Amino acid sequence: MKLGFIGLGAMGRPMAEHLLRAGHELAVWGRRPQSMAPLVEAGAVAYASPAELAQQAEIVFTMVTAGEDVARLALGQDGLIHGLAAGAIHVDMSTIAPETSRDIAVRLAGKGMGMLDAPVSGGPVGAQNATLSIMVGGSAADLDRVRPLFELLGKTIVHVGGQGAGQVAKACNQMVMVAAIAASAEALCLAAAEGVDPARVHAALAAGSAASRVLDVFGARMVKRDFAAGVEARLHHKDFGILLDEAHRLGCPLPIAAQVGQQLNALMGMGWGRMDAAVLLRVAEASCRRN
Amino acid sequence: MKLGFIGLGAMGRPMAEHLLRAGHELAVWGRRPQSMAPLVEAGAVAYASPAELAQQAEIVFTMVTAGEDVARLALGQDGLIHGLAAGAIHVDMSTIAPETSRDIAVRLAGKGMGMLDAPVSGGPVGAQNATLSIMVGGSAADLDRVRPLFELLGKTIVHVGGQGAGQVAKACNQMVMVAAIAASAEALCLAAAEGVDPARVHAALAAGSAASRVLDVFGARMVKRDFAAGVEARLHHKDFGILLDEAHRLGCPLPIAAQVGQQLNALMGMGWGRMDAAVLLRVAEASCRRN
Repeated sequence: MKLGFIGLGAMGRPMAEHLLRAGHELAVWGRRPQSMAPLVEAGAVAYASPAELAQQAEIVFTMVTAGEDVARLALGQDGLIHGLAAGAIHVDMSTIAPETSRDIAVRLAGKGMGMLDAPVSGGPVGAQNATLSIMVGGSAADLDRVRPLFELLGKTIVHVGGQGAGQVAKACNQMVMVAAIAASAEALCLAAAEGVDPARVHAALAAGSAASRVLDVFGARMVKRDFAAGVEARLHHKDFGILLDEAHRLGCPLPIAAQVGQQLNALMGMGWGRMDAAVLLRVAEASCRRN
Repeated sequence: MKLGFIGLGAMGRPMAEHLLRAGHELAVWGRRPQSMAPLVEAGAVAYASPAELAQQAEIVFTMVTAGEDVARLALGQDGLIHGLAAGAIHVDMSTIAPETSRDIAVRLAGKGMGMLDAPVSGGPVGAQNATLSIMVGGSAADLDRVRPLFELLGKTIVHVGGQGAGQVAKACNQMVMVAAIAASAEALCLAAAEGVDPARVHAALAAGSAASRVLDVFGARMVKRDFAAGVEARLHHKDFGILLDEAHRLGCPLPIAAQVGQQLNALMGMGWGRMDAAVLLRVAEASCRRN
């Protein structure tokens, strides 16, 4: 198929490579030409604007950080809306506010264009190994057309509901995941304050009712004090801004998430945003008694 | 071996039955004679006080709810300390404050008696199926003697550290587990407020980075709105009292656990203490917009 891809960073680049390797024609665009170079070398074609790229593609993927960037790419002066044919689909795999995603979908629908919100969990490693979990909002018909491409990128594809529902699921995922990281950090901090070896506590917890992927992955990083980034914690901070804004907009109190958001604020205040979220252990330790 | 068991409730009774079935001589004591009846029918012998029971046993297990009850059983007027021989071991499998456990251990050690704190995770189902996770604090020598008995009760036995360390690990386990339940409740509540099907969100999360035993077990109960007790939530409320007291004593701030503790306070305030902790969903919903 004729595809487009915008946003060739730590996540987008390996995803675009999977699509290209599967034999699809791939159009790319980037603000920085050097971000496109490896894809172009591998056979992708670079275009001068999102609109020009969109003219070449039946399905265009975006994978960027901020909601305003997705809106600009889709609806701006040189945006996808000015190049996509009726019947083409914009698949946004970024993590942005459900409201922003729904707004873009409505504008595109006005010109007969489809849209799916399809944020992912799994991080750069999941992108490289094509093992992402993809949470999809939008119509079943659009998803049917895009599904074979999603299958090149991830191992689990869940159709959560209508437009924006993928973003809602992603917000829920981040709430649960980062709350688990923050709670694990507090637990290991309490263990240390009690004079008990955090590695032994981690081993005890991994076997019981508290067992989780977070405890396996982030708990182990905390025990080894390995705070190098898997996913940069500043992205979790961004995600919590989105979900706490949603809570405010809806009148839906999220007391645990609010507290986790404050821990992420502290993490950013300490200048650790480019480290892994396991560094929440250091946030907890910063004000906790040492033995 | 000659064993004793005190505390024949939802947890203790199946555990005592496993010990008896393995061929050990079992002495039992209970405040309420009827709690002992099924064990006595199966071959255990009832005694008139903890002290009298202790005279018959090399190793005595206790499995009760409150720390003050463990202290009274161990050190009170008719307590174990007045019956155990030097070299005998008190194995407390209750979930109590590390400090209380250490105090009992010191008093027993003064008479040459051993003590292990060995709280468990897994609930009544784990007790029945002998699949508990057992978190042990105390000396390696005492654990070596008790280990064959623990192997009749659980499938994972972790020696966390010295006396009290098992209780510290259990406190950490409860922090991480109940925080995950509370965060899952908030997430499903946000999904509903967004007009998205919580069952689909649960399915999406179960496949990704937020995956956990809590999400599998408690998330599924929330989706089915099945709030009948696995473990009664009032016990989690009790555990949070312990761990927040520890945090206060040590000067160790636990902001996430503190907020979870408030949610458990709300749960108790609503009169739901005998339900499963999955009812934290209803606590979250109580103040959240409905669609």
